[in-house]
Amino acid sequence: MTSIKDIALHCGVAISTVSRVLNNHPDVSQETRERVLHAVESFNYIPNTSARNLVRSSSDTIALLVKGVSNPFFSKLIKVIDREITLCGYTLELHQMDTSENELRIGAQLANERKLIGILFLGGRFNYSPEEMAMIHVPSVFCTYTNTFGTLDAGTYSSVAIDDKQAARDAVNTLVALGHRRIAILTDNENDNSISELRFQGYKDALREHDIPFDPNLVACTGTFSDMKAIYKATSSLIQRGGNFTAIFAIADLMAIAAIKALSDHGKRVPQDCSVVAIDGLDLSEYTLPTLTTLVQPTEEIGLACARTIIELIKHPDKHRQYTFETVLRPGGSIRAIQE
Amino acid sequence: MTSIKDIALHCGVAISTVSRVLNNHPDVSQETRERVLHAVESFNYIPNTSARNLVRSSSDTIALLVKGVSNPFFSKLIKVIDREITLCGYTLELHQMDTSENELRIGAQLANERKLIGILFLGGRFNYSPEEMAMIHVPSVFCTYTNTFGTLDAGTYSSVAIDDKQAARDAVNTLVALGHRRIAILTDNENDNSISELRFQGYKDALREHDIPFDPNLVACTGTFSDMKAIYKATSSLIQRGGNFTAIFAIADLMAIAAIKALSDHGKRVPQDCSVVAIDGLDLSEYTLPTLTTLVQPTEEIGLACARTIIELIKHPDKHRQYTFETVLRPGGSIRAIQE
Repeated sequence: MTSIKDIALHCGVAISTVSRVLNNHPDVSQETRERVLHAVESFNYIPNTSARNLVRSSSDTIALLVKGVSNPFFSKLIKVIDREITLCGYTLELHQMDTSENELRIGAQLANERKLIGILFLGGRFNYSPEEMAMIHVPSVFCTYTNTFGTLDAGTYSSVAIDDKQAARDAVNTLVALGHRRIAILTDNENDNSISELRFQGYKDALREHDIPFDPNLVACTGTFSDMKAIYKATSSLIQRGGNFTAIFAIADLMAIAAIKALSDHGKRVPQDCSVVAIDGLDLSEYTLPTLTTLVQPTEEIGLACARTIIELIKHPDKHRQYTFETVLRPGGSIRAIQE
Repeated sequence: MTSIKDIALHCGVAISTVSRVLNNHPDVSQETRERVLHAVESFNYIPNTSARNLVRSSSDTIALLVKGVSNPFFSKLIKVIDREITLCGYTLELHQMDTSENELRIGAQLANERKLIGILFLGGRFNYSPEEMAMIHVPSVFCTYTNTFGTLDAGTYSSVAIDDKQAARDAVNTLVALGHRRIAILTDNENDNSISELRFQGYKDALREHDIPFDPNLVACTGTFSDMKAIYKATSSLIQRGGNFTAIFAIADLMAIAAIKALSDHGKRVPQDCSVVAIDGLDLSEYTLPTLTTLVQPTEEIGLACARTIIELIKHPDKHRQYTFETVLRPGGSIRAIQE
């Protein structure tokens, strides 16, 4: 088996140089780095980090616990987080949960079992209590959500999220500015103490600000963020109920895509017969017909903030911070102005 | 802190019964199982599997090493694999790699570091050598690929995949049956010793079988499976080159979606001006405009086969098997018959 000494000899460098390259230290010239990595590759050398881990007092593993991994917004976010965590010399371990599972319980169990040094929760509930949080004995960050419906003190948790209520308000305002007043909403759930409830509140707030009466008949609940069939069905019943709406605010891009399909299958063209606006800003929805008009979440920035917050927190466990990002409208072809 | 004894006392059952419930043993009545799980939930009890792991000689962790996690076909597959592995009492740990990384090297390193009992490689190369495979000292399964371009003996590896060449042939045959002869291909790469090369070969085979001359001018390489912008660009140059094609075979659904957008932006409607067929069968592409005609990979069956093959292999390390699944055409609205 090839040893680190063989690699060093082959490259004509010190063993410590090989080690620095393997541990991503910056103080190695680009040329040496490439030469070492090339030798590592050709000799099939496997660094013995296992031994290194035994010497260390703890692991270097941060877990990312994801609820709803089929959410394409998360796919990109996970990529950014993974890249940054790895770049900073930690190991990221991904675990998936069903939306019905209790992320805190699973987090607590994994932290014990796998000697985690930190946990990133992706896509959790907005309503933790201090008693629940007491289960988690390692630094943790709530990614894409805050504790709006919970009882945690702001000084006791860290979060990275967008302002969901504001994003929903912006979406509705965009439609109102174009003359729409009969605006339907496509949401997962009206009162799940979670992301859908917040966006639903933002929708209602925006209507109120424009003196548009809230009409429960214009609310379509999908019960899901990603099951296209269920979203299609919910939109179809919304259409069949009548309600005379001229626009739909879908709380996520995927919902908007299924909604546009349902509208089309019911003979309603987007945007001629119905405008559609969403929140997410997936790459994908720039390539749908029509291009989706959507409020873009700054995925890169959110991902970096998640990674850096947990790393900071591991170093300084009491330095809690809540980051809030803004969404930006990406103009598309799915909305149009109307005269009433 | 709540102990397993507290749970047993509360439920009026033996400690061993609680343990059986927690370890998913089948010999517990549904009623008892629910009562125990309810108590576990209300007491915030965290099973001490950490201690259990110390007693065991090895971990129960199977790693899933994914190349290209933003591939939406993989998202669903990962879900199925994760569910089955967990159901069978093992822990699945997900690790992402860039497409440029060497999955075998990373697998070997992780197997050492994390005391893995098995590895599922998802989305790897088709050209391993016995020397490379010698790095991997734990049971492993190649998921979604085989060793077509490699030098491994069939008795020395396990794989679960579709017949990529045949799927591509089926896609092209579908178009030929409708009268198309000027058929372009949208592929990642012509000769990457991987999935794209196999599907490209299937495309060329089908043309040959129908005495249609291969025209390099009708080949558009995207260099990616998931970067929509790059796929859109590759399709745009294909359109600008002329070539007078009446149909496009895209080797993946996402490619087809970006291609349809590019065609539309160049004034070409699908299917009126150009037919489009793909391979994957994503849920998503049933909800695009038009509905994508695509060869469906049986995701559920593939995922179950991946999970069960690695579990079998962990028990019987020499029982290698290669599973091949068939794709099935899902009719859509993106192809039409033409007269020549």
